[in-house]
Amino acid sequence: MVDQKMYELGTRKSTIRDVFEYGRKLAAAEGEDKVFDFSLGNPNVPTPEYIKEAAVDILQTMEPSAVHGYTIAPGAPAARRAIAKSINERFGMEISEQNLFMTAGAAAACTICFKALCEAEDEFLTFAPFFPEYRCFVESVGGRLVVVPAKTEDFQIDFEAMEKCLTPHTKAVIVNSPNNPSGAVYSEETIKKLAEVLRGKEKEYGHPIFLIADEPYREIAYEGFTVPYIPKFYENTLVCYSYSKSFSLPGERIGYIMVPDTVADFQQVYGAIAGAARVLTHVNAPSLWQLVIARCAGRPSDISTYRENGQMLYQGLIDAGFTCVKPQGAFYLFPKALEEDDYAFCERARKYGLLLVPGTDFGCPGYFRAAYCIKTDTIRRSLPLFKKLAEEYKK
Amino acid sequence: MVDQKMYELGTRKSTIRDVFEYGRKLAAAEGEDKVFDFSLGNPNVPTPEYIKEAAVDILQTMEPSAVHGYTIAPGAPAARRAIAKSINERFGMEISEQNLFMTAGAAAACTICFKALCEAEDEFLTFAPFFPEYRCFVESVGGRLVVVPAKTEDFQIDFEAMEKCLTPHTKAVIVNSPNNPSGAVYSEETIKKLAEVLRGKEKEYGHPIFLIADEPYREIAYEGFTVPYIPKFYENTLVCYSYSKSFSLPGERIGYIMVPDTVADFQQVYGAIAGAARVLTHVNAPSLWQLVIARCAGRPSDISTYRENGQMLYQGLIDAGFTCVKPQGAFYLFPKALEEDDYAFCERARKYGLLLVPGTDFGCPGYFRAAYCIKTDTIRRSLPLFKKLAEEYKK
Repeated sequence: MVDQKMYELGTRKSTIRDVFEYGRKLAAAEGEDKVFDFSLGNPNVPTPEYIKEAAVDILQTMEPSAVHGYTIAPGAPAARRAIAKSINERFGMEISEQNLFMTAGAAAACTICFKALCEAEDEFLTFAPFFPEYRCFVESVGGRLVVVPAKTEDFQIDFEAMEKCLTPHTKAVIVNSPNNPSGAVYSEETIKKLAEVLRGKEKEYGHPIFLIADEPYREIAYEGFTVPYIPKFYENTLVCYSYSKSFSLPGERIGYIMVPDTVADFQQVYGAIAGAARVLTHVNAPSLWQLVIARCAGRPSDISTYRENGQMLYQGLIDAGFTCVKPQGAFYLFPKALEEDDYAFCERARKYGLLLVPGTDFGCPGYFRAAYCIKTDTIRRSLPLFKKLAEEYKK
Repeated sequence: MVDQKMYELGTRKSTIRDVFEYGRKLAAAEGEDKVFDFSLGNPNVPTPEYIKEAAVDILQTMEPSAVHGYTIAPGAPAARRAIAKSINERFGMEISEQNLFMTAGAAAACTICFKALCEAEDEFLTFAPFFPEYRCFVESVGGRLVVVPAKTEDFQIDFEAMEKCLTPHTKAVIVNSPNNPSGAVYSEETIKKLAEVLRGKEKEYGHPIFLIADEPYREIAYEGFTVPYIPKFYENTLVCYSYSKSFSLPGERIGYIMVPDTVADFQQVYGAIAGAARVLTHVNAPSLWQLVIARCAGRPSDISTYRENGQMLYQGLIDAGFTCVKPQGAFYLFPKALEEDDYAFCERARKYGLLLVPGTDFGCPGYFRAAYCIKTDTIRRSLPLFKKLAEEYKK
């Protein structure tokens, strides 16, 4: 009577949701201060004051029909011009509004790209650990998600493993740097090598392989870690961006796709993106937020809280005996679990009120994700508990 | 290299867009006062002041994370409670927030329903004249759109023609009342008869047939025309609503799906709707607008401009010798063209600067659509031109 796949996708509980709900119950039973919820990637830095001011000013001074009317499908020209200007200034690109397509956040941006590109039997590669919704999105457009095993020493790319996964059916490679869940930032060296491998394969297979750069965490990168602008290194790159994390606007659904002129057959790709946005019923990205972006694109994000939180959690985990890659970007740490079974480990952590997500959920068993976009004080109070948990394993 | 279907959908020009662009060129060449653009269904009544006030107050007084954070996928409970209350009060229903799923407008609401329900070989029925995007949306989820020919005397339903179109593959029937493009409102008699026919066919086929009520124009109905609340007449109804027209917020993408408890296997349907919203990457409906709706759901829309415009255009057309059903709702008239070929007729009208859309685009050849959500003065000045156009045909 209904599409059973949709029913399953709409009702299957995710581990993250499960963990979160357990936390709410624990808080109700034992008090908020007994819960250390590292499960959700919900930005906790407040939306910048300049965003609020821009939104209020637009509402109070502009004609309502100019604020709330339909925009053309690719988005308000003023928003796209402001974004192009900011990209050109920051990354030395030379794009214009014609290279941008506004979307309802990065989930829509990525899926619109998948839908635009996917033909029969196409494969989309990504690297473990990865954002689990990729599977759902790629499969929903008829593609197959191929996962390259993680390079757990540093969460850069295991190129040998990658090459084994590339086939003539590879339509695109999805990269997400700064990464959810590992917190790693791909180095320029990694991107250069990736571009080289893909160019070789493009020649070998005789067709383009697209690189889809899913970059909601671009602005959240710490000292010493620069996030290379991938279109500078590889022609067939599509950038998917969201203001969810940089401006703490996840509920408003605002982002974009950048299609550089260097992309193989730009007109075909941009046209197919417009068609995909249409059938996914993103009539236009929410119009007020397009106007806010027209005024605020490129303005800095305050990442000091994330920096402090990441450092504190990292140091605490290391002191407790965990192995973990240093915080580089985003707001996640992805330490090694203290036993092979990451589910069992996370279950054990729950006894202390420490709510963590098993790495298996991200295609990387034996690890766990701790989202540190929470109160700094909660992290401080959690450290002795991580220590106790680690001591259990030393007995 | 890309999905060719997406490329076509993203690049094929619609007649409406074509007409609109012609109008812009004409305005540039001969002056704005020479263009009478009846092509677009863009609401021209300003967004109500109370909507602006609510949005500004929410931005200025609430915690940013409470305003801009992710909501749960079905939508903010406060918004759904306010909508449920308003529906219960206005239509004597007894629904709760559990019966509502917030969406990014009606296009998303309808397509989410199509995607949730569509199984292999399913057919979706609709009635000419119809909103042309239905075809694109139904086909994109793998369904087949079956069009019941128009009942052009009054644009109610030709039940004989409808019964011929129903088959065991019929999954749902889409109704859009007040109607785009005909401006007709389905009477209670029509809805009762429709329910009776569908109930009979449900028994005959042994499975539910859903009625998808696409109702963005619900609030725009004129004196003497009441829009029946279809779930009161037919159990398996899903209501798709948008605030685009009632609150003049088309660019913000905010609406909902109402799934009554009476629907066959509520859990399956609601669950599949959640899954469909997920794969169509509507993570949540834009959060600020959900909060605005929580405060403003059910508040009245000012339709006086549309009423005045509709009456004036209708009377002018009748005086000029056109045949046309009286304005009942929405902001469209759908008169008979003065020659059989509606494209040729609209082409001829262009000479006078009258920009109209051929009925063929809505599955109803020989008619044309005139959207009267434009300046009242433009309509007034257009009437002598319609007269001249009609006189051409009398020679």
